[in-house]
Amino acid sequence: MNKRGFASDNNAGIHPDILDAILMANDGHVIAYGDDAYTIKAKELLKQHFGEDSEVFLVLTGTGANVSGLSAITDSYHGIICPETAHIAVDECGAPEKFTGCKLITVPTTDGKLTPSILTGLLHGIGFEHHVQPRVISISQATEMGTVYKSPEIKQLASFAHSNNMFLHMDGARIANAAVNLNCGFKEITKDVGVDVLSFGGTKNGMLFGEAVIFLTPDLAENFKYIRKQSMQLVSKMRFISAQYIPYLEKEIWKPNAQHANRMAKLLSEKVSLLPEVKITQPVEANGVFAIIPERIIRPLREKYFFYTWNEERSEVRWMTSFDTREEDIIGFTDTLKNLLRNQ
Amino acid sequence: MNKRGFASDNNAGIHPDILDAILMANDGHVIAYGDDAYTIKAKELLKQHFGEDSEVFLVLTGTGANVSGLSAITDSYHGIICPETAHIAVDECGAPEKFTGCKLITVPTTDGKLTPSILTGLLHGIGFEHHVQPRVISISQATEMGTVYKSPEIKQLASFAHSNNMFLHMDGARIANAAVNLNCGFKEITKDVGVDVLSFGGTKNGMLFGEAVIFLTPDLAENFKYIRKQSMQLVSKMRFISAQYIPYLEKEIWKPNAQHANRMAKLLSEKVSLLPEVKITQPVEANGVFAIIPERIIRPLREKYFFYTWNEERSEVRWMTSFDTREEDIIGFTDTLKNLLRNQ
Amino acid sequence: MNKRGFASDNNAGIHPDILDAILMANDGHVIAYGDDAYTIKAKELLKQHFGEDSEVFLVLTGTGANVSGLSAITDSYHGIICPETAHIAVDECGAPEKFTGCKLITVPTTDGKLTPSILTGLLHGIGFEHHVQPRVISISQATEMGTVYKSPEIKQLASFAHSNNMFLHMDGARIANAAVNLNCGFKEITKDVGVDVLSFGGTKNGMLFGEAVIFLTPDLAENFKYIRKQSMQLVSKMRFISAQYIPYLEKEIWKPNAQHANRMAKLLSEKVSLLPEVKITQPVEANGVFAIIPERIIRPLREKYFFYTWNEERSEVRWMTSFDTREEDIIGFTDTLKNLLRNQ
Amino acid sequence: MNKRGFASDNNAGIHPDILDAILMANDGHVIAYGDDAYTIKAKELLKQHFGEDSEVFLVLTGTGANVSGLSAITDSYHGIICPETAHIAVDECGAPEKFTGCKLITVPTTDGKLTPSILTGLLHGIGFEHHVQPRVISISQATEMGTVYKSPEIKQLASFAHSNNMFLHMDGARIANAAVNLNCGFKEITKDVGVDVLSFGGTKNGMLFGEAVIFLTPDLAENFKYIRKQSMQLVSKMRFISAQYIPYLEKEIWKPNAQHANRMAKLLSEKVSLLPEVKITQPVEANGVFAIIPERIIRPLREKYFFYTWNEERSEVRWMTSFDTREEDIIGFTDTLKNLLRNQ
Repeated sequence: MNKRGFASDNNAGIHPDILDAILMANDGHVIAYGDDAYTIKAKELLKQHFGEDSEVFLVLTGTGANVSGLSAITDSYHGIICPETAHIAVDECGAPEKFTGCKLITVPTTDGKLTPSILTGLLHGIGFEHHVQPRVISISQATEMGTVYKSPEIKQLASFAHSNNMFLHMDGARIANAAVNLNCGFKEITKDVGVDVLSFGGTKNGMLFGEAVIFLTPDLAENFKYIRKQSMQLVSKMRFISAQYIPYLEKEIWKPNAQHANRMAKLLSEKVSLLPEVKITQPVEANGVFAIIPERIIRPLREKYFFYTWNEERSEVRWMTSFDTREEDIIGFTDTLKNLLRNQ
Repeated sequence: MNKRGFASDNNAGIHPDILDAILMANDGHVIAYGDDAYTIKAKELLKQHFGEDSEVFLVLTGTGANVSGLSAITDSYHGIICPETAHIAVDECGAPEKFTGCKLITVPTTDGKLTPSILTGLLHGIGFEHHVQPRVISISQATEMGTVYKSPEIKQLASFAHSNNMFLHMDGARIANAAVNLNCGFKEITKDVGVDVLSFGGTKNGMLFGEAVIFLTPDLAENFKYIRKQSMQLVSKMRFISAQYIPYLEKEIWKPNAQHANRMAKLLSEKVSLLPEVKITQPVEANGVFAIIPERIIRPLREKYFFYTWNEERSEVRWMTSFDTREEDIIGFTDTLKNLLRNQ
Repeated sequence: MNKRGFASDNNAGIHPDILDAILMANDGHVIAYGDDAYTIKAKELLKQHFGEDSEVFLVLTGTGANVSGLSAITDSYHGIICPETAHIAVDECGAPEKFTGCKLITVPTTDGKLTPSILTGLLHGIGFEHHVQPRVISISQATEMGTVYKSPEIKQLASFAHSNNMFLHMDGARIANAAVNLNCGFKEITKDVGVDVLSFGGTKNGMLFGEAVIFLTPDLAENFKYIRKQSMQLVSKMRFISAQYIPYLEKEIWKPNAQHANRMAKLLSEKVSLLPEVKITQPVEANGVFAIIPERIIRPLREKYFFYTWNEERSEVRWMTSFDTREEDIIGFTDTLKNLLRNQ
Repeated sequence: MNKRGFASDNNAGIHPDILDAILMANDGHVIAYGDDAYTIKAKELLKQHFGEDSEVFLVLTGTGANVSGLSAITDSYHGIICPETAHIAVDECGAPEKFTGCKLITVPTTDGKLTPSILTGLLHGIGFEHHVQPRVISISQATEMGTVYKSPEIKQLASFAHSNNMFLHMDGARIANAAVNLNCGFKEITKDVGVDVLSFGGTKNGMLFGEAVIFLTPDLAENFKYIRKQSMQLVSKMRFISAQYIPYLEKEIWKPNAQHANRMAKLLSEKVSLLPEVKITQPVEANGVFAIIPERIIRPLREKYFFYTWNEERSEVRWMTSFDTREEDIIGFTDTLKNLLRNQ
């Protein structure tokens, strides 16, 4: 049996109902590249969640969703403002710069969240040809720090963006975890509060592969089909992405999956926060727990459970839970941690 | 039931044994992004086929494999020589130019195949800074025209490339169809005859998704892991690509699949070539049949079977077979064609 | 004294009146990057020639003008159609592909000129996401083959472009030579016949350096100032480009300069066409003469006069004249050629 | 007469001896693109200053020099570390990102200078494919803040870079001002202390236009001629850049020019620092003076003299002097400032 852990929500596998949907879709011939009944159905379902006038495109990876979506709303002389912890800034090996040509303007934050007041100081050099022109504010929901934007916070950022001739982009790799935290639907934290373009993730919440780029401002999608292809994000046997989205949305698999992951994170956080020398560093609002633990126990703990160090200087680690995290994983992990703290 | 057809080999689904392998891999947690037992095994198997000193990377799409592989062996001031029918030149929406920055130098051919004599005239301006510097010869095996390079033909191109300070790249989206046509293994038409970098396709021959970039000249792979990530071709749940390659190679699923597809193409070609007003335009060496048919019957024929027009001016169509094409498909198609020729 | 020759019109120096203008502009402080009186004046003069509603930007090089201008009217998934002899296709080291990301779709021609009938066959795959979308037709006036488009020919290409949702771009590195050949002004062969964007050259006709990108369709210029800067074509001491354009246009230096160069080309062509074994291969309509001469005399001839071989296979050479070519240069050259033909 | 000012050193014109050199070079035909006697001579002189084994290329603009030089030492998955005030980060409209594809990793500093201790924390994720790989440390000499690196400081940065598999790049747009401040030659602050690639500026110190990219580590120049062309930095009439460098270096025009500019900055700084409400914010080591002045007087002061606001929030302005700044300019400016402080 494989070692379990808290390295990332994408260390988990596929939810059984989603795997079933893939099996069912493996039936004869369908037109490749998305002109098939599964894709039509998946797009309908996504439009039900995000608004009938949204434009929906399925892609392959989270990085692909972010980069292609950003590419649709920028020219190369634009700037993309994001937190310095953003996935697009840190974890995509420079793909955003390479593919869009844009500068990423990164902003320090304490909790991974942007606010209009942080941004005001960045809007200089507008109209000045020597400077890149800020064009996009990109936020992650949930954030890379496991925190969640409330609807009004997003709305404020959208207003700020739109009143400054910018767009609001959301990296929703973990949008399901945010939605269940807020006890709302997807639309209330995207379309309804002014998000223009969304990377709608599924892989981290029980799908095999596949993400969606959703244009809540549909005009922006005009040429996206070419961008998707040119960014190498158009899959030939698309029915097998689409088929996953059908139960994910129709049977609302996203909801219990994300609820469970969030609950496990909460539980983990509660358990470990009772231990000496463990300091939780971020509010646990989604499925991530950030903690400072003694440097001496990181290595032995990792021998038993997968996880990553977030900040070496501060001895801060990140533990992610997923739809398939078990309570016994939490208990086993906490016990191991407790023993290590005592004995090392 | 879905309509069947001859539009493309990627209109087919997943071979049952490969789907089984995906199911089996859905077991607990493994490290994402390729540091898992399935990927280690898949890479071992690929090295057995291509040589122990080859370097193997799994990616997502055929376009992704081509573009990232080409990116590893070029700088933006280089030229990439290919037939004017090449997938990289025609079917990738300019992704090679966008991502590598290179010029594609396209060469007319009759059968989709390059020869050294065609290329000699292109090597001017070497060392002259106003001209892009030819750096790569890219061939497809099997070609987009359904023809197959023989080993010595590839070897000659490799010699020509290497003696002119160039690399030989192979788009092997249909390499299995070529190998069974030549009754040989993959190594004999790649590593052994001087190919430097290969896009090794599986999707068109029974896999769900996933391709491999294989560096037969291993030094060229030095920084490829960054290129793969930056080209948005690194999948998080990589075990599900890797798991497919295990039966594909270990149980040699590639072989009967490709043999069947090729045989069906041959059968189709034989059947339709007996019909009046049908002219087969290319040797049928892999799984594609090219034919000129009367323009008047294209539309009614397409209402019953998927397929694409290859060349509108010449009323030339392309029919692709796949691992799951049935003899009854061929018969039904031929009958329909016959009737249309008679009655329209 | 320096060796003279027919290698290129940019082997010539600066016209004295233009040099004077540079001297005069060297007076105290002016704001850098174009916010100065010289630039305002130069732009006014250019607008007088091209229409008050044109938008004018000064840049540094011909390649820079072409690439930045094309960048303003394309996205990376577009195709740019041009003759296979075009400067953008052959002589810019792939800068167009690198900077725009576009594919260049090159078309064989006999005389460097495109026609609508040549282009019709290229407009396939429109709306099909696997193919680049043709967006620009780019022509050179005068062409790289020394020929000149007549106004109606340009108008036809513009109509073809516009009725197919494309733009017409003109590389006018030698537009002055074309205009004097046609005995017309610049507007009649650009704005009046539908050209959208023009690279307006001066360097090849007596200026030190500096070109202009002129948007005849002014909306296309909306964000060009950022593109100019990002393409490294914004010069700090811009007054010294601008100052050159003032006499060039106000005193019409462009006209006698180009007339002289064209006349010298005509004279050269007439003289050498009388010689045995010399075959003029293109109509001499601007300042270039193309000829096939015996391969054996190319090297000794080049020892006395600069010039380039155009096509090695055919032993075809190119001789360019310039504003400062002297009749004695022609006579000396013809005599040398004659002697070599006799004695070698 | 034109208004004078302190906006930038490139608001000045051309030094008379340099203009003379341009006049002298306007003699007959020479081969374009650098194969001429002026360029050969200029390169020889540059090699005398920077070491015989350096590789020298003339380009057009400062941005062009930086971007093309950086392009020669990076791949697109690399990171370029620089101060957040760096010209490449702030004033080049994203050209570095667009052209190299790299991420710029910007570091806050107080005085525009990097130190190894600042950089240590940035070297994480080495070998981790999700992160860009730091490859270049880029510094400006003199800095954008008017400060100057001492030789040992550069040497430390070079050692840090080289011991971490990185290169040291120097933006030397104002290297002459730095050299005279340190009372040394160019080699002592570049080649001798480990700089790998230098943008050697001339325009800000009395030239018309033209910069040089100098490879102190000559192997890095291997393919630079293609990069120069592809980055649109190859000028056809190159003799007129080269000719300027001849007196600039041979007659050492760079030295009195820079000495004068620096002396004027010092004088200005001394004069204004006596005034109430004026706070000099940076050491005046080159030709820039940074000061906080009352916001109310910025606009009226600018009506008389050109200058830029550096930081609106802090009401901080930048005053640049140049080779042609006159003592009377300083006196006039100081008097105006004094009057405004008194009366507004």
